[in-house]
Amino acid sequence: MFVLGIDPGLSRCGYGCVEQGVRPRAVAAGVITTDPGLERPVRLAELQSEVRGLIAELRPGVVAVERVLFQRNASTAMAVGQASGVIMAEAAAAGCEVAEYSPNEVKESVAGAGGAGKDEVGTMVQALLGLPRRLHPADAADAVAVALCHLARRPLAARIAAAGDPARPPRPSRLESAR
Amino acid sequence: MFVLGIDPGLSRCGYGCVEQGVRPRAVAAGVITTDPGLERPVRLAELQSEVRGLIAELRPGVVAVERVLFQRNASTAMAVGQASGVIMAEAAAAGCEVAEYSPNEVKESVAGAGGAGKDEVGTMVQALLGLPRRLHPADAADAVAVALCHLARRPLAARIAAAGDPARPPRPSRLESAR
Repeated sequence: MFVLGIDPGLSRCGYGCVEQGVRPRAVAAGVITTDPGLERPVRLAELQSEVRGLIAELRPGVVAVERVLFQRNASTAMAVGQASGVIMAEAAAAGCEVAEYSPNEVKESVAGAGGAGKDEVGTMVQALLGLPRRLHPADAADAVAVALCHLARRPLAARIAAAGDPARPPRPSRLESAR
Repeated sequence: MFVLGIDPGLSRCGYGCVEQGVRPRAVAAGVITTDPGLERPVRLAELQSEVRGLIAELRPGVVAVERVLFQRNASTAMAVGQASGVIMAEAAAAGCEVAEYSPNEVKESVAGAGGAGKDEVGTMVQALLGLPRRLHPADAADAVAVALCHLARRPLAARIAAAGDPARPPRPSRLESAR
């Protein structure tokens, strides 16, 4: 089963798809960007189209989205909120289970502490996936962390059942794709 | 040319479609509701599907959306922001021009004062459209007000050109439809 983690944003929306298993495996990670020169509705439609394509290609069972919190900049928070709305609607419309996790839940589950920095999260994502080097850019690593958070927080029984699943044929990795 | 006004919301999303003319004419108005018992992503997907159907049916040139402001209740504001993101993405993806107006801009343009109450807006919408009675529910009247705000704020030249347009064949009205 694939879990697609999303770090929502309108300028930069990180995504990272992880395959569930005894050791989780990253199958795709990257960043969707939209042109800041375009109007917001057009950018939201671009994001919608990209997310739809990603879900159609990867067919995740779960889409795990980082929850948008209110920041000092209300306009930025609203843009990110609108982006997350588009992403969640697309995921639910495609029949995926949608899970939301707060930034602190993601950091705590991946790096062991809710106050962990981006650097620490990147290092832990690399270690948990056994990658030869860190994922770049950081938005992609953050999105993978959201997917790993979902896997870590699922009930133990579900994880044991998954670990006993017959191995799926490996799929080519799309890490750091140019998408 | 049709202008579809939207008063965004996840529980209740008002819509009102107005035909541009010497005297604007309402052609559709109502409320899209989603089941509060369902999870938010599923509700956003429902809203997405309803808005897509509405745009496909009415084929508006412009979708005018009331801008979401930050309220005291951050969670409600985020839900409405996510709904507005879904609506704007659908409108832009369908090739519509998308315009945003603040609640005060809408009230000022319809009722003459930014601080006008819902009651006053409802009465003015009835008068501006020459309706025998007020539109119900209020969310539908509010959405019509957003569409009227867009028409009132377009440059005068565009309005004169529109007034000189050959009359379009009248379409059946869908006011207070059960949608």
